[in-house]
Amino acid sequence: MNNISELKSPAVFIGKQGNGIISFGSGQPDLPPPKEAIEGINIRSDLRYGLIQGEPKLRDSLSKEYPASAAENFVITNGASEALDLIFRAMDKGKVLLPKPYYYSYPEILKFSGMEPVYTELNKGRIDIDDFTEKVQDCKAALINSPSNPTGRVESIKTLKEIEKITKDLGIYVVSDEVYKDLIYERENYMIQGSHVITINSFSKTYAMCGVRVGYLWSNDMDIVNKVIEIKTHTSMNTNLVGQDMAINAMKAPKTYIEKQLEIWKQRRDIIYEGLINLGLDLWKPEGAFYVLPKVKNPRDTVWNLYKKYNVITYLGNWFGAPDRIRLSYALDIKEIEEGLKRIGRYLEEN
Amino acid sequence: MNNISELKSPAVFIGKQGNGIISFGSGQPDLPPPKEAIEGINIRSDLRYGLIQGEPKLRDSLSKEYPASAAENFVITNGASEALDLIFRAMDKGKVLLPKPYYYSYPEILKFSGMEPVYTELNKGRIDIDDFTEKVQDCKAALINSPSNPTGRVESIKTLKEIEKITKDLGIYVVSDEVYKDLIYERENYMIQGSHVITINSFSKTYAMCGVRVGYLWSNDMDIVNKVIEIKTHTSMNTNLVGQDMAINAMKAPKTYIEKQLEIWKQRRDIIYEGLINLGLDLWKPEGAFYVLPKVKNPRDTVWNLYKKYNVITYLGNWFGAPDRIRLSYALDIKEIEEGLKRIGRYLEEN
Repeated sequence: MNNISELKSPAVFIGKQGNGIISFGSGQPDLPPPKEAIEGINIRSDLRYGLIQGEPKLRDSLSKEYPASAAENFVITNGASEALDLIFRAMDKGKVLLPKPYYYSYPEILKFSGMEPVYTELNKGRIDIDDFTEKVQDCKAALINSPSNPTGRVESIKTLKEIEKITKDLGIYVVSDEVYKDLIYERENYMIQGSHVITINSFSKTYAMCGVRVGYLWSNDMDIVNKVIEIKTHTSMNTNLVGQDMAINAMKAPKTYIEKQLEIWKQRRDIIYEGLINLGLDLWKPEGAFYVLPKVKNPRDTVWNLYKKYNVITYLGNWFGAPDRIRLSYALDIKEIEEGLKRIGRYLEEN
Repeated sequence: MNNISELKSPAVFIGKQGNGIISFGSGQPDLPPPKEAIEGINIRSDLRYGLIQGEPKLRDSLSKEYPASAAENFVITNGASEALDLIFRAMDKGKVLLPKPYYYSYPEILKFSGMEPVYTELNKGRIDIDDFTEKVQDCKAALINSPSNPTGRVESIKTLKEIEKITKDLGIYVVSDEVYKDLIYERENYMIQGSHVITINSFSKTYAMCGVRVGYLWSNDMDIVNKVIEIKTHTSMNTNLVGQDMAINAMKAPKTYIEKQLEIWKQRRDIIYEGLINLGLDLWKPEGAFYVLPKVKNPRDTVWNLYKKYNVITYLGNWFGAPDRIRLSYALDIKEIEEGLKRIGRYLEEN
């Protein structure tokens, strides 16, 4: 990058690493997957076409994790991305309500699948249920994401139950992207339920397997499940079987694997949150996932100068519908977080 | 299956195997992949996100296989299916010319991506260049497939060069699905070329890795390549890295791997072709791929009765736009082909 105008998407930072760079950029865990996910994988048994819907063993394991589900309610996909893409391709075309700031792919996924995104502005990083209720009236679906990338916030159980009811009464879908559901610091998760709910999840974040590309959707509405399978039959066929085997095995890891990870994430959260507060920045306290989204003056200049002069990668809030903010992922070890905070401190002092 | 009306798509035969069934159904190689594809794969190194466009090593290897290409011209995808889906999603919307009979996913892929399929009827299993020329005039693209699934035919070099020129003169794309290019029995392949050409291929057939889901597209038109990458960034992200590693290694196999496979396929082709001719059926001689598409009386009854009474799976020609025929894949060993032919002979005698 030679010019600030090149700051168009997270892609500009791909491959920028080493040389003392501290990267608060990419949203992928740096922790190892459970050893179960790697050991005992026999590639040789994964060479022939599998079921489009996904391996029965994996769907069986998932049905045990979700109460009120059966193996037939799941479709295994190339990450949560494909699950979202297929869901919106399968729906009747129309508006979809999206809380803003949003995960940067959401508006694009909706547009590529022929849907029209409409927005409800978050209040302190959480859904404003009055605005949500007003805007959702003429939508085909709402897409929510709790814990949220990029805000790090978790919706209250009250809000989730209200969303569950409003969408049910309207007879529309609610698509709940829960890829960070195992990374909540503050309370138990509440899973919204009902035959109008489509839950999206992935093995990428919980089990640190981003590159393997295994995600899934589940819904008790077999019409939408069957429509998704029909589309996937032609557009990508079965999800890669080696990845599905790894996912089956990852789910055999003891619960302590997830608990230990959560402790590490919480420690990092405390350090980066307090560090940025001490630097005088205005930000919401993350309750889940691994992102902070502080307000800064001149976000574009900030991201540019932090990278060019201080060797620190941050993402522009504008990519996530948050034009007055920048996003930092804290998927890196504490020493690096502390060094990054020092450099951000120097930048704030010197500018 | 209890009723003949259930013969709606190849999906009805999924999981039907064993119990003495001879299956001429599924189009996947039964031969092993090269040992290079399996050995030395280190799953542990494939856990982090990769480049959306695909691993540089794999694209480098591919650029050596295709003259006049560079690594930047390739996008690695979840099989040839995703490559086709992305290409048509990336194009301006309009008509696409499709030779008929066709691979059964083509019309669906076109419809799901917002394109409108129009058809040119094949003549003896090959493109009728006059009809092609007439019908392609108001199309955005033509989609060809040589060697063809389901006809087993290979287009003549003359036809391919004419298609290359007609589409170039019209300023439209030609999408050439060459997943069977390494399975031609009769002559060398001719690869159509030009910046209006988009070539689709896969590791599934050549290297017997269907379940691993690694395919690719290549084009020297960087506009379409970049548009594809943009869509894939949001709809599935990188293709699974374990599969890409296997593909890189598969390409290191000696040429004799492909040559030996080709000998086996040719031997099987001769047996099934002569066998069906001896049974009095009317069919085209396969010049590539591993399918035959004989004419039969009452194809629906034939497929139903062969399955129910003779324990033989065949596919309905109607699924491929060939209503008076049935499709047989000869991806099974010679003993099974011979046993299957005997049973088909008994069926023809008894009905």
